[in-house]
Amino acid sequence: MVATKVDGRVVRGDQTRRAILDRAAAIASVEGLDGLSIGRLATELDSSKSGVFSHFGSKEELQLATVRRAREVFVAEVITPALRAPAGLRRLWRLCEAWLEYASRPIFPGGCFFAAVTAEFDARPGRVRDAIAEAHRDWQHYLEEAVARARDLGELSADADPRQLAFELDAFTRATQDALLFDERSVYTRARRAMLHRLRALAIDPSVLPKSPR
Amino acid sequence: MVATKVDGRVVRGDQTRRAILDRAAAIASVEGLDGLSIGRLATELDSSKSGVFSHFGSKEELQLATVRRAREVFVAEVITPALRAPAGLRRLWRLCEAWLEYASRPIFPGGCFFAAVTAEFDARPGRVRDAIAEAHRDWQHYLEEAVARARDLGELSADADPRQLAFELDAFTRATQDALLFDERSVYTRARRAMLHRLRALAIDPSVLPKSPR
Repeated sequence: MVATKVDGRVVRGDQTRRAILDRAAAIASVEGLDGLSIGRLATELDSSKSGVFSHFGSKEELQLATVRRAREVFVAEVITPALRAPAGLRRLWRLCEAWLEYASRPIFPGGCFFAAVTAEFDARPGRVRDAIAEAHRDWQHYLEEAVARARDLGELSADADPRQLAFELDAFTRATQDALLFDERSVYTRARRAMLHRLRALAIDPSVLPKSPR
Repeated sequence: MVATKVDGRVVRGDQTRRAILDRAAAIASVEGLDGLSIGRLATELDSSKSGVFSHFGSKEELQLATVRRAREVFVAEVITPALRAPAGLRRLWRLCEAWLEYASRPIFPGGCFFAAVTAEFDARPGRVRDAIAEAHRDWQHYLEEAVARARDLGELSADADPRQLAFELDAFTRATQDALLFDERSVYTRARRAMLHRLRALAIDPSVLPKSPR
């Protein structure tokens, strides 16, 4: 019984911690990671959670934990759904679609967490910038590997350069950042069309892909 | 003589104002427009310039003037050089190249001013966001018109969709933001290759364009 209680407490502690970090990621998506402070989070959230803040210790630790939490959300929203599609071109396309869906739904009120904090920290060396850079690099490698897999399975032309194609697909989704600025959703259609055009040009059997942009 | 003196003072006033705004844009490229304050600029710059700060009146006016100054720099660095090339595909390509050069040279220490402040303000309605959105829209229209002109001159395929192609070219340059984060210059080569590939595919006479990426 004691063990169960302890486990129960651990589970509640994790849930509380996650709720705090979700709030932190939401604030950071609008105001940047510099807009975060333990004091502010304590005020915005139930003050009885203040015990949890001792886990973070410093503003930098809180920022790093927020980046890790945003990565978890990205994996759950983009990578996990794509894994349901068979490996190869279908999975690559599902990855592109899941990513556009993620970018177009307001999971964070300020849009993509990583777009917001990348522009904030790209010129500010340190542990936070390194964590953001690592998240980007991991995602780009994942996308490159999905391209290479599709090529190795004979579903994409042997000419397909995984690094170049991953860069291009990545660029199209990032450019949808404008949607928030312009309150305009047509950029998602343009990004989808651009991705589909690139992939159809390299696909051995283009019928695997949707015909034309929705 | 009095008139000359007054003119001289006006010129000096403009130069001082421009120097202040250049410093403001440099700070904003690293720390965002929220990192700006009249007090901070007064401390960083010669305090005898304090009279000029009265021109801005408020932090918001200073932010708006900084956005206007960054637009002037962008026009001088990207649009003016491209106007030296003949209208059509050559000018469109020169625009792409000038823009990549601008993105790759550290004019502002935090990289592209607009990339930094867009991520900062995209979810924060108000006059500053409107000014940033207007700068983006004007640039995208300019790029679209350059595509349309090249098509109307018979140098790009009639199939070329100016809005779609402008979106794609825009996306490739924005994706070079990574270079700062990764301290890696190969993204400029990838962006150049992607732009060239798109334009060569639509060019009536691809020999107008460079053969392969440098």
